Amino acid sequence: MDILMGVGRAGLKSGGKPDILVVLLPKTCNASFVFTGNHFKSASVLYSQSIFKGKVRALVINSGNANCGVGKDGLLHAELMAKKVVERLELEEDEVLVFSTGVIGKPMPIGDVLSAIDSACEVLEPLDLKRASEVISTTDRFPKYDFVKKDKLEVFGFAKGAGMIHPNMGTMLAFLFTNADLSVDVLEMLHREVTESTFNSISVDACTSTNDSFGLISLGVYKEEDVQKVRQAVEEVSLNLAKKIVQDGEGATRVIKVTVKHASIKLKARLIAQSIATSNLVKTAIFGKDPNWGRIVAAAGSTPFPIDQFKLKVYVGNHLLYDGKVHPRAVEEARKYLQESTEVDIVVDLMEGKESWTYYSSDLTYDYIRINSEYTT
Amino acid sequence: MDILMGVGRAGLKSGGKPDILVVLLPKTCNASFVFTGNHFKSASVLYSQSIFKGKVRALVINSGNANCGVGKDGLLHAELMAKKVVERLELEEDEVLVFSTGVIGKPMPIGDVLSAIDSACEVLEPLDLKRASEVISTTDRFPKYDFVKKDKLEVFGFAKGAGMIHPNMGTMLAFLFTNADLSVDVLEMLHREVTESTFNSISVDACTSTNDSFGLISLGVYKEEDVQKVRQAVEEVSLNLAKKIVQDGEGATRVIKVTVKHASIKLKARLIAQSIATSNLVKTAIFGKDPNWGRIVAAAGSTPFPIDQFKLKVYVGNHLLYDGKVHPRAVEEARKYLQESTEVDIVVDLMEGKESWTYYSSDLTYDYIRINSEYTT
Repeated sequence: MDILMGVGRAGLKSGGKPDILVVLLPKTCNASFVFTGNHFKSASVLYSQSIFKGKVRALVINSGNANCGVGKDGLLHAELMAKKVVERLELEEDEVLVFSTGVIGKPMPIGDVLSAIDSACEVLEPLDLKRASEVISTTDRFPKYDFVKKDKLEVFGFAKGAGMIHPNMGTMLAFLFTNADLSVDVLEMLHREVTESTFNSISVDACTSTNDSFGLISLGVYKEEDVQKVRQAVEEVSLNLAKKIVQDGEGATRVIKVTVKHASIKLKARLIAQSIATSNLVKTAIFGKDPNWGRIVAAAGSTPFPIDQFKLKVYVGNHLLYDGKVHPRAVEEARKYLQESTEVDIVVDLMEGKESWTYYSSDLTYDYIRINSEYTT
Repeated sequence: MDILMGVGRAGLKSGGKPDILVVLLPKTCNASFVFTGNHFKSASVLYSQSIFKGKVRALVINSGNANCGVGKDGLLHAELMAKKVVERLELEEDEVLVFSTGVIGKPMPIGDVLSAIDSACEVLEPLDLKRASEVISTTDRFPKYDFVKKDKLEVFGFAKGAGMIHPNMGTMLAFLFTNADLSVDVLEMLHREVTESTFNSISVDACTSTNDSFGLISLGVYKEEDVQKVRQAVEEVSLNLAKKIVQDGEGATRVIKVTVKHASIKLKARLIAQSIATSNLVKTAIFGKDPNWGRIVAAAGSTPFPIDQFKLKVYVGNHLLYDGKVHPRAVEEARKYLQESTEVDIVVDLMEGKESWTYYSSDLTYDYIRINSEYTT
C-alpha cells in the first residue's frame, strides 16, 4: 500500500537538478483540490481543473517552468505530460493531474520534459516527503514536509513555495495524504475549511500566483468515524506547511503572526489581520525591530470595517503598547522582544465581540528587494 | 483679495524648521473637503470633519506630529489650535479647520504649538505656494505646488506627501484654490470626481494613512459658467500634485503609470490597474529594470474580475510584450526602454470593452526598506 514516486531531469532548473516528480498512488483515491484564484492561470492548472472529477491515481509535477503565459501550447503540453504518465503506468486519463511551478512565459521544452517523465516512471520507489519537496522546489531555501499520527489516523504531506505568496494562493504547491477513508464530499468540506485558516491565511508579498494548487488525498485504508479528528490533523499539517512557506518567504528574517481578537464577525477579524500582516510599513518596521504600533493601527483602520480607536488594544509579544493611549515603557520592552524573536506575535484586541483570526506573514527586507529586482523572467 | 499665510516654529520637526502654517482666506469661502478613509483617524481629522459645514475662512496646519493615537487629548488639542486662530484673527469657530501630519502616537506639546500659532498670526504675508508646501512637509524631498490659468480661471494649490500613500488616502495634505465662484454643491461634485482620478489613483506603498485631507476652496472672485472648464483645471492641478507625491515616493527611482484599456466596466479597469500598480513584485521588477510581463499579468489576474488570458495585450513603453504569446524581441527592447525612462508606461489592453483607468505608483527599492525600517515612531 505504498505511495510511489519517480524523479526525472528535464533541464528546467539550473545545474541539471531534478525537476520532474511523478507520484503514483496505490489505487484510485478520493481527493479534493483547490486551485489558484488568479484569473491568469497556468495551463497546467487549467488542464487539471478541467479533468479532475474527485478521483486521482497519479500526479506529475514539473518545477522550473510555470507553463503559464505561453498561449494555447501550454494546454497541449499539460495534456501531453499527463498522457505520457497514463501510457507508461497504464492509468485512466482523468485520474492523472499535472502541476507546474517556476518562471512565467517560458515555452516548455516539451520533448525533454516527456523524456524525463519517461525516466521518472522507469524507477518508482516509496514516497520520500523530503525528497519530493526538494524536487518540486524553485527558490525555496529548505524542503517543506510534515507528518502527523493520531492513533490509527495518519496525515502527511509535502509542499513548496517562497515567493508570490498570498491567499488564493501563492506560487505554492502542497499535497496532503491521509490513510483515512473519506468520501469526496467530506474531503471537500474539510479541505475548504482548512484551506481558509492555513494556506489562505499566509502572505509573503501579497502577490497571488498563477500556479497554486493544494490537494488532499484519501488513501482509503480504514474508516475513520471522527471527522473532527481528521480535520484537526489535516489542519495541523497544513498549518505547519503554510508556516514553513512563510518562514522561507523571500528575504524573510522573521515570521509575523497577527491575531485579531474579539471582533464582532469573523470576516472583520480576518480582513484586519490580513491588512496588518500585508502592510509594507508594518513588515519593514518588524525588519527594523521597531514596535511601531502606529503603523499597526493605521493598517487596522484600512479595511471597510469601522474600529473604535479609543478602545482597541495593541500587543507586541505580551507587551500592551496601546489601549486608547500609548504605554512608552511597554514600547521599549517590545523593542527588546523584537530583537530576540524570530517569530513575532502581534495581537489587536478589538474589544467588541467573540470572533478571532490569525494570519501569518514575513518581514520585508533588503533581500526581498534584491531577490525580486535581480530575478528575471 | 490676497490669501495670506503665517509661519511658526513649535519644535515639532528636527532642526527647529518651520512646522506651523496658518492660511487666512480673504473672506469666508465655499469649500469641499475629503478626509482619509482610514477608520483610525487623526484627532485633527475628527475635529475638522465634525465642525466643517461647507464654509472655511482659515486653515491651521502642523507638521511633524500626526495628532493621532494619543487618546481624547488629541481632540482637545485640535480644538485649542483652532480656537487660538479664531481668537487671534477674530474669526468664527466653525470656519477654521485643523490639519496635522507627522509621527503617530506622540503627544502634541500643545503649549509650544499654541505659542507658535500666536507668532504665525502675528506676521501675515501673501500665500507663497512653494513656501507653504515646505512648511507642511515631513519626509518630502521637494515642495509640491502647481498653478493653472485658463482665461480668467485660476486654480492653484500646494500639497505634501511621500510615504503611507494609498487611496483613501496617503499621509498627504493637499489644498486647492480657485478664483471661480462655485456653490458648495458644485464644489463637492467636482471634488469627488477629481479625487477619484487623481489622489485616489496613486500609491507609494499601498498603506492608507490616518491623516489625509484634500480641500478645494472657491475664492468666489467671479462667476464661471463653464463647470467642465473648472473641472479640467482642478483635475490638472490635482493630477500634477498627485504625480509629484508619487515621484517623491519613499525611496522611489521611477514613476510607474499603469493604464488598463478596453475593459467592460470602469471598476474593472480601475481595480486591475491598482492591482498592477501596487504589486510588490511588479514594483521590484521595475526597480530592477526588468520588463517582467509575467508579474504584470499575474497581478492583472488577481482581482475579482475574470480576464481572457489568451486575448489580452501587455505593453511596456510602446513595446507589445504579450498578446496571448510572448514576443521575445520586444521584451529586449522594453529592457532598454526601462534603462532609459524615469516614468515607466505599462498598458494592459483587455480587448473587451470601452472603459479605461490610469493609476500611478512608484518602484520598490532598497531605499524604501532603509527609510521604513530605520524610521521610528
